[in-house]
Amino acid sequence: MKPLSPTDQLFLWLEKRQQPMHVGGLQIFSFPEDAPDDYVARLAEQLRKDTEVTAPFNLRLDSRLAQPVWVHDEHLDLEHHFRFEALPTPGRIRELLAFVSAEHSHLMDRERPLWEFHLIEGLGDRQFAVYVKVHHSLVDGISAMRMTQKMLSTDPSKRNMPPVWDMSVRQGRGGDRSSPSLWQSISHLLGESGKQLGTVPTVARELLRSVNQARKDPVYNSMFHAPRSILNRKITGSRRFAAQSYCLKRIKAVCHANDATVNDVVTAMCASALRTYLMNLDALPEKPLIAMVPVSLRKYQKPGEDQAEGNQVGVILANLHTDEHHAGERLKKIHQGMQEAKDRYAHMSPEEILNYTALTLAPAGFHLLTGMAPKWQTFNVVISNVPGPKETSYWNGAKLEGMYPVSIAMDRLALNMTVTSYNDQVEFGLVGCRRTLPSLQRMLDYLEDGLVELEQDMAS
Amino acid sequence: MKPLSPTDQLFLWLEKRQQPMHVGGLQIFSFPEDAPDDYVARLAEQLRKDTEVTAPFNLRLDSRLAQPVWVHDEHLDLEHHFRFEALPTPGRIRELLAFVSAEHSHLMDRERPLWEFHLIEGLGDRQFAVYVKVHHSLVDGISAMRMTQKMLSTDPSKRNMPPVWDMSVRQGRGGDRSSPSLWQSISHLLGESGKQLGTVPTVARELLRSVNQARKDPVYNSMFHAPRSILNRKITGSRRFAAQSYCLKRIKAVCHANDATVNDVVTAMCASALRTYLMNLDALPEKPLIAMVPVSLRKYQKPGEDQAEGNQVGVILANLHTDEHHAGERLKKIHQGMQEAKDRYAHMSPEEILNYTALTLAPAGFHLLTGMAPKWQTFNVVISNVPGPKETSYWNGAKLEGMYPVSIAMDRLALNMTVTSYNDQVEFGLVGCRRTLPSLQRMLDYLEDGLVELEQDMAS
Repeated sequence: MKPLSPTDQLFLWLEKRQQPMHVGGLQIFSFPEDAPDDYVARLAEQLRKDTEVTAPFNLRLDSRLAQPVWVHDEHLDLEHHFRFEALPTPGRIRELLAFVSAEHSHLMDRERPLWEFHLIEGLGDRQFAVYVKVHHSLVDGISAMRMTQKMLSTDPSKRNMPPVWDMSVRQGRGGDRSSPSLWQSISHLLGESGKQLGTVPTVARELLRSVNQARKDPVYNSMFHAPRSILNRKITGSRRFAAQSYCLKRIKAVCHANDATVNDVVTAMCASALRTYLMNLDALPEKPLIAMVPVSLRKYQKPGEDQAEGNQVGVILANLHTDEHHAGERLKKIHQGMQEAKDRYAHMSPEEILNYTALTLAPAGFHLLTGMAPKWQTFNVVISNVPGPKETSYWNGAKLEGMYPVSIAMDRLALNMTVTSYNDQVEFGLVGCRRTLPSLQRMLDYLEDGLVELEQDMAS
Repeated sequence: MKPLSPTDQLFLWLEKRQQPMHVGGLQIFSFPEDAPDDYVARLAEQLRKDTEVTAPFNLRLDSRLAQPVWVHDEHLDLEHHFRFEALPTPGRIRELLAFVSAEHSHLMDRERPLWEFHLIEGLGDRQFAVYVKVHHSLVDGISAMRMTQKMLSTDPSKRNMPPVWDMSVRQGRGGDRSSPSLWQSISHLLGESGKQLGTVPTVARELLRSVNQARKDPVYNSMFHAPRSILNRKITGSRRFAAQSYCLKRIKAVCHANDATVNDVVTAMCASALRTYLMNLDALPEKPLIAMVPVSLRKYQKPGEDQAEGNQVGVILANLHTDEHHAGERLKKIHQGMQEAKDRYAHMSPEEILNYTALTLAPAGFHLLTGMAPKWQTFNVVISNVPGPKETSYWNGAKLEGMYPVSIAMDRLALNMTVTSYNDQVEFGLVGCRRTLPSLQRMLDYLEDGLVELEQDMAS
């Protein structure tokens, strides 16, 4: 029996019929060279026998004295969690994305350990896919990525590698975090009160008071300037997932020519895609969109300084300059803004950073806690970057071709753009509400267009 | 805009995360003789183009003055409702049932019309399947069956037949009903108060009072004798669906030898399967299980009598005699009990029938309305029989090989056994809570064993 942390409780508490709070990961593998045509079916047979389920995958929710706790599931039914499935003809990436979109929309059964592992056959070119879905209360995005990496090896000849549910995960939530999440930040924001979610109205009132005070302060005043947009409407329960890999070399060439970072160029690609997407819907706000970009603050700490967990979390409010029509100019401005934000952090004390982060997230937090939309909006979209494996990886000889994060869409934050890196690729995973954001998959083309524009600008 | 009837509201109101209130139907078709190997993919292509969506499939929920209403969905997204999917290798019935089990466990998105049409390829022997899922508030089981039949034709050469979502359904809920449902009965039970579900505590209190009075009455006293069993526990959110066809000729031979009806033999098969299943789990109650069997009361009315809707609904509490180890004896006793119940109805006035039905359902209704389990249980399981097409049917030249109802499991009614008829087959569809009732699929073998036992008894 293990009580849930306040952050973990938050995910259960925020979950609604139309707002599931699980995260996912999609991986595409190639068959090993010598594999038979029915390789995936054989793999499924083998995985089905792997009934050794280790923590946290053997834990289910229960309650003790009205507090949620994790308990060992005595009746674990692997068939419920491990699912062997297939794509319909013609088995393209399009069918895979439709499959993940539908699965990612479904709530999980709270009576059981909150995870599912989908092994997917029927993809062309001797490839198969794995889609893993884990409730955010059980594991966060970073830990999930780490678990996946633990499942993999750089050795293509290695066999008898267990699936993700059958390995002891030594690094829990308290472990090293190279990238913070929105959730840790919200948890900090709630502070001590957040430890008892029963006091939510009080927390929300305090939040509202401090935000209103801060808005009078010219230092923070600039933060409340995100425009209204369709990205910030209430969502429905069905999701669209779109994912694609982009060549890291191409992105690095643009970085080099513009003296920008990979993150700057990725952010500029997102800005360009959002601009085109909203323009086509005749819904681009006049004022530029603002993205919330979680960043690690480790590097801004002086040596010897206290490394309390709070110090590791920060967010940058990145102005996406979607009002600027010239792609090269847009990148320059984005780079400049990101740089200024980083410089600002470098000169802030840990307490100032915490205050700043809390206030950035306040409107979203206030809305999440109360269901009421505040009059101010600090950001329109979340763009987050999670580091992935740097070398070509294998699972039982099957080469990992691509891995894509599948994150969470929420009321008033209908789109999540999560980016990860793998080998020589930058992998985008977009999750959105299917009704609020129609034809979200077009954004993949617009991301490519955004990169092409920057390449053309570089050449000219 | 069309307000929801009280019964329809009931389904929305009863729906919980672990208790979805949709019904389904699974159909298995053979390819037309001249069909190419990629027949199902071509069919999917064709269906995708059929964007003409007729009522009730174009209606979504909304609310007006705090009352739920159906409104026309202006943004209907066919891709959300029509899904082309595939079974994993080896594509047996087992994989199909696992697929339907998982899909039937998922809640539907209330922001959209509450239906899904799954076209499923990858079944062996040049077959494919269709699984249709409709919320019970939009359509009841009988209407669903009728819609399906409307989609079909007895003419194998007929083509250009539209899918179920593209046809005007003239018969709504008020139409002719050849078989009543549990729901109509519960709706009657709620009576006038049921028309405003806001008064639920009052209804529950009234219910409790009249039941307690009735229990003192020797006439009704016999009704409260169902034993406790694992079938009557709280359920979780995941379902197991099991389905199989049994030869009508074999069943009719048993009928003939025992002077029993098809329904008697079907009930005896269920009794036998339940007995074996519970014995193997060491959970067979000493006292016999009681099944609630909805019946049409039309035939018990005298000519010229008022045909108010209430008169059409009745339930038989069938003693399944699961304490009797001899199969032939069990069938005799079941037949006798069913006959007595029918005779009793024949001598009852419409008011008496309504009272009797209401009291039969009272404990289930009380539990559904209050979430509290009453001390008394009138039945353990629902066994319902829905008439299906009598002739071989086709859809665009594809022969219908089998059709299986997929009904609803509920708290304290963890198993639903619905039977339908098609051509020369009797089709069983079992839906149960996956955790409360482990390895439910074994019940299919036990049904067959039950039939074999009766055949052997007949031969001896």
